[in-house]
Amino acid sequence: MSEPIFECIPNFSEGRRAEVLDALIRAAEGPSVKVLGIHADPDHNRSVLTIAGPGDALFEAVFRTMRVAVDKIDLRQHEGAHPRIGAVDVVPWVALDNQSWDAAVGWATKLGERTADELKLPVFFYEMAARRPDRRNLADVRRSQFEGLETRLAHDPPDLGPVSPHPSAGAVAIGARRPLIAFNVILGTDDAGVARQIARAVRGASGGLAGVKALGFRLISKGRVQVSMNLVNYRTTPLPRALELVRMEAARHGVAVVGTELVGFMPMDAVEDVMRYYLQQPDFDRGRILEVALDQNRRDPDE
Amino acid sequence: MSEPIFECIPNFSEGRRAEVLDALIRAAEGPSVKVLGIHADPDHNRSVLTIAGPGDALFEAVFRTMRVAVDKIDLRQHEGAHPRIGAVDVVPWVALDNQSWDAAVGWATKLGERTADELKLPVFFYEMAARRPDRRNLADVRRSQFEGLETRLAHDPPDLGPVSPHPSAGAVAIGARRPLIAFNVILGTDDAGVARQIARAVRGASGGLAGVKALGFRLISKGRVQVSMNLVNYRTTPLPRALELVRMEAARHGVAVVGTELVGFMPMDAVEDVMRYYLQQPDFDRGRILEVALDQNRRDPDE
Repeated sequence: MSEPIFECIPNFSEGRRAEVLDALIRAAEGPSVKVLGIHADPDHNRSVLTIAGPGDALFEAVFRTMRVAVDKIDLRQHEGAHPRIGAVDVVPWVALDNQSWDAAVGWATKLGERTADELKLPVFFYEMAARRPDRRNLADVRRSQFEGLETRLAHDPPDLGPVSPHPSAGAVAIGARRPLIAFNVILGTDDAGVARQIARAVRGASGGLAGVKALGFRLISKGRVQVSMNLVNYRTTPLPRALELVRMEAARHGVAVVGTELVGFMPMDAVEDVMRYYLQQPDFDRGRILEVALDQNRRDPDE
Repeated sequence: MSEPIFECIPNFSEGRRAEVLDALIRAAEGPSVKVLGIHADPDHNRSVLTIAGPGDALFEAVFRTMRVAVDKIDLRQHEGAHPRIGAVDVVPWVALDNQSWDAAVGWATKLGERTADELKLPVFFYEMAARRPDRRNLADVRRSQFEGLETRLAHDPPDLGPVSPHPSAGAVAIGARRPLIAFNVILGTDDAGVARQIARAVRGASGGLAGVKALGFRLISKGRVQVSMNLVNYRTTPLPRALELVRMEAARHGVAVVGTELVGFMPMDAVEDVMRYYLQQPDFDRGRILEVALDQNRRDPDE
């Protein structure tokens, strides 16, 4: 069997300065790793980089980007709609096969150790890599935000690293988690209260859909608002159900969905869900896509 | 460059007898060709086989299936909802790259010659392979149906082969055509008149959507009706527009869409159209699907 491939999706608190985004991409590039893309959002002032590769090469690539971020991003001057605790805000590792979750946690742990040692950042481990049950949920880890870090760390020390925040780069959350879909719905209003009410209605934690995390934001640059969702269990709470519930709740306010946005990538499983739902074809699968069918045959010449 | 690959989708007037369907599949199998699948419909009493491969191997495979069909299917005992002129009703060739359309017409022509010679069937060439402008449109070629063939051939001889129908196997239409999507919408009624009215409303030839051919059928086995569509230009008339127009017209009759059905395969272009439409993401493309992105990188290691 070939070496397992991981995906790592570091989130940086910079979504505006092109030269910083370029530097992050350049830092990620290297032998054996693939930089799949960067999604930069000027309203969130945040960017999400997707990199894939074997663990050791990916570890080095991600660490290089973290060093650039700590060097170039100063949270004391940062403003943006999205909650964050650091210049490198969160670094999730994802295994791309079911055998490699322990290894993903191992890489997250190793990255946390090096980050504490060399970058002098307080490190919180979250989700599968969490060392305390109250740090499994990323929202809890991030609740103090950058501005509240100093007070918080005094009574709630990090898992690794200094007990006071890095002056410009704050702290970082490093974890391993199941793949998720980061999906934003743009609404035809500039009323942030409407977005927040809808987020509350669709979010599992406040009575909405299990497997959906949601926040409401104003997008200053667009004069719109956004319901920003993480679909953390998209096989049991599929994307179309979340989108259509947002649409239904928005209609209560006389507000229309004007578009959606995928942050990063979507697995083929989710594409199947979209096809099944909207085409009302419960048995649709990727094998019905001509290119996939031809490719499957190409790879399995004896079948 | 490697040898061009073609797709051939012979349609047979048999959708019920499993042993005949099995014999057709077995006849198709052979070196270098890939049998992607068979779609058999008991109400239409018709099946659609999708085979891909290089021209010469595909030619032989398709001809083997035609010989089996002529041997095992007797149109004198055939009943089914779908119009047809023969045991092998229609044999379209599709080029899978833009350079190979002349070659696809060449293979269709060669197949027609062998069919006339060895199977003694009257052959009509249609679409890109048509030799007369009035035979470009398959519906015109098929209008007489099997039952009217004898009368029709007497004054309207085929392009090749005998001027009277094969007693049990009728005639065949062989052509080369652009890829299409064969897509059926199932409606929550057993009123065939409703299906026919909706088909008329969505079909380009009677005032509906350009690029849509449509017929209405009753599905006896399901107690439902169906609007059966060919989307012959699915880039300019995409699948969601056709489906939603059917839904809108059905609502006039108080009838709901209860499901849809894909006959054969759908190109990735059409999957992109579905995602763009229903997710309201006009710039969605296949590169946002994680598996596709990883695979593209795998194939182009230097990019």
